Amino acid sequence: MKHVLTEGNVIVGQSGGPTAAINSSLAGVYETALQRGAHKVYGMRYGIQGLLEERIVDLSLCIKSDMDVELLKRTPSSFLGSCRYKLPAPSADEEVYEKIFGILKKYDIRCFFYIGGNDSMDTIMKLDAYAKSVGSGIRFVGVPKTIDNDLAVTDHTPGYGSVAKYVSSITKEIIADSLVYDMKSITILEIMGRNAGWLTGATALAKSTDSEGVDFIYLPEIPFSMERVRDSVVELQKTKKSVVITVSEGVKDESGVMYSETIGNTTAVDAFGHKLLSGVGQYLANYLGREIGCKVRSIELSTVQRCGAHMSSRVDVTEAYQVGGAAVKAAFGGKSGCMVILKRLSQDPYICVTDVCDAKDIANIEKKVPLEWINEEGNGVKQEFISYVRPLIQGEVNPLMINGIPGHLTLPKGL
Amino acid sequence: MKHVLTEGNVIVGQSGGPTAAINSSLAGVYETALQRGAHKVYGMRYGIQGLLEERIVDLSLCIKSDMDVELLKRTPSSFLGSCRYKLPAPSADEEVYEKIFGILKKYDIRCFFYIGGNDSMDTIMKLDAYAKSVGSGIRFVGVPKTIDNDLAVTDHTPGYGSVAKYVSSITKEIIADSLVYDMKSITILEIMGRNAGWLTGATALAKSTDSEGVDFIYLPEIPFSMERVRDSVVELQKTKKSVVITVSEGVKDESGVMYSETIGNTTAVDAFGHKLLSGVGQYLANYLGREIGCKVRSIELSTVQRCGAHMSSRVDVTEAYQVGGAAVKAAFGGKSGCMVILKRLSQDPYICVTDVCDAKDIANIEKKVPLEWINEEGNGVKQEFISYVRPLIQGEVNPLMINGIPGHLTLPKGL
Repeated sequence: MKHVLTEGNVIVGQSGGPTAAINSSLAGVYETALQRGAHKVYGMRYGIQGLLEERIVDLSLCIKSDMDVELLKRTPSSFLGSCRYKLPAPSADEEVYEKIFGILKKYDIRCFFYIGGNDSMDTIMKLDAYAKSVGSGIRFVGVPKTIDNDLAVTDHTPGYGSVAKYVSSITKEIIADSLVYDMKSITILEIMGRNAGWLTGATALAKSTDSEGVDFIYLPEIPFSMERVRDSVVELQKTKKSVVITVSEGVKDESGVMYSETIGNTTAVDAFGHKLLSGVGQYLANYLGREIGCKVRSIELSTVQRCGAHMSSRVDVTEAYQVGGAAVKAAFGGKSGCMVILKRLSQDPYICVTDVCDAKDIANIEKKVPLEWINEEGNGVKQEFISYVRPLIQGEVNPLMINGIPGHLTLPKGL
Repeated sequence: MKHVLTEGNVIVGQSGGPTAAINSSLAGVYETALQRGAHKVYGMRYGIQGLLEERIVDLSLCIKSDMDVELLKRTPSSFLGSCRYKLPAPSADEEVYEKIFGILKKYDIRCFFYIGGNDSMDTIMKLDAYAKSVGSGIRFVGVPKTIDNDLAVTDHTPGYGSVAKYVSSITKEIIADSLVYDMKSITILEIMGRNAGWLTGATALAKSTDSEGVDFIYLPEIPFSMERVRDSVVELQKTKKSVVITVSEGVKDESGVMYSETIGNTTAVDAFGHKLLSGVGQYLANYLGREIGCKVRSIELSTVQRCGAHMSSRVDVTEAYQVGGAAVKAAFGGKSGCMVILKRLSQDPYICVTDVCDAKDIANIEKKVPLEWINEEGNGVKQEFISYVRPLIQGEVNPLMINGIPGHLTLPKGL
């Protein structure tokens, strides 16, 4: 009878930006908690922000069948809604904590699960510290989630594998499209990632026997220079007409200033004197168009990356479910103030298991791509990177198609 | 022994912008021509432009197995490459025609197939007229293709169903993503379509019991006003926090001027005095951000729409194959100067067959969305539109996944 709950309820919330696998973690928490004795599994609407307003739903009213669970695993965005609310320190505003613990007591909550990134682990850490300081037995466990793959300690983060699969597949399609005319052209894809290049690096996976792959890959870990890009493109176009570039939205110049911020601070205005916004991809396209003179197209994948649930990775969706289940097991076994992590035991064959670590080792820390995984020219990734990410994009979770488009699970109206 | 070729070869080319189904038509031409007696099936590299340079490939060297055919049907972009070359009138430049017919004679070509849109049918029309004027027996038949669905006479055009399925699925995912935070927001999707709103209208398919669907849909058929959009959004946001808008790239103001052109002609410059480009989606986002003040995000689906072969429609891919086959049958039966069309015999159940029509009825004509299929407010489509497009997005062609990403067929190196 270890790792079970003998009385009371649990609550789960989702925080930060959504991923294609975040709801699979929710399914993992939900099913595992019920299997291991939880009386009720509650969900917070819009994370801790909704909890503070007592916006709480009984998940059994939302997930009513095994089919609902399958749909939930395929549903993009955060099923319960999310927030970017950061808890104040208990010393700064004890009232917030009293309110939260009052609500948790009212619903007889014994375990609290928060699916999120490094900000969310800050929440777990603070709530656990407060619980211990007031002698509350409520356990707080984090479930890792982010498309950015920037959480420390864990080998990788659920959500990343699906977006890596999506981004590399789309990139391969765009490369095919870029070859359609017999003319010089440059195609630029701007990919999410402000400080870590995990997503942009994954576009290296597009290279295969049936695709030339991306020509140049620029990550925020390496200082970026428009002039160096131009020189590389000019050199390559001596032998190759169509050049494809992927660039992280967060690339920085030599002095560490993000291009997207510089652009935002320029005097770019439209006819009415209003400031125009432009990402680094479009900016680079304008620059290369002027400097080289061939056809240049910039594509910003935008939020489409993180909500592309129709092309998710089975490994990712399965691991996302497992970390949800492991969080329940850890909490029911008495752990608190911790986050579930993934540990890669073997690369080939790929074997990965769950473990837990202190939330304080995760909170507010960003894990970047190791510099030794980036090539010397700073415009591509090495085999180590590819070997790391390749196992994470394996397998498919085919969408459940209804009337020609993917079916999702949504909250009943009014909840 | 009707509709067979008893001697000689055929040639096929692809023209204009690619689609997710264009290579299925190529497969249809290839297999049907071989089955019906063609000695060799040649392919033009980069359409008529490559033909003029005698860049011709023997397709049996490129498509070597049934598996290759399956991969070809799932390969985005134009397998043979494409061009936007427009033939001069024979009276203006007879030399071009003499060159083409010389090359066709050299390869013993009896039938010429061109997979393309209304510009390509202009090519078919001119080549057929020239053939007749010089007493050549070569037959010229067009195979319809376009994502824009703007070809006349035919009920719809292969390529459209897949992009309608892709765009409506992505839109549904983006709608889910837009609901993640409990705050007022506006999400704008800019969709391809300069003069016809078929693609943008298809986003109406996202609405289902598990999705609120798009709130406002703006097609180029109806004059567009930023102020009216603002007023509609302000009114709706009294009861609904997250508003999702889809807008055709080609929307025009009351005087018929395309917004994207006006924007391109503004004085928008960056810090270095260089002109910045911006689509109507971003432009509308800037405007609504200023006027309404809530979070606004603009997403431009760009070429991702037309190369999203991992999410193609089985109805579309099957029909694309069929029109390729029907073109061969028509040419082998003696027809020339024509294009294959699709005729919808029944809406429910959906039954569609092929026929042929004169290329001159297609060439250089654009079919727009009927005004009676657009709602009175000019910001949505009626049930007639949905009933028309719904059958075209049915069924899936699951990608053949290799190493975690979709496999494609590519030309052997050096061809």
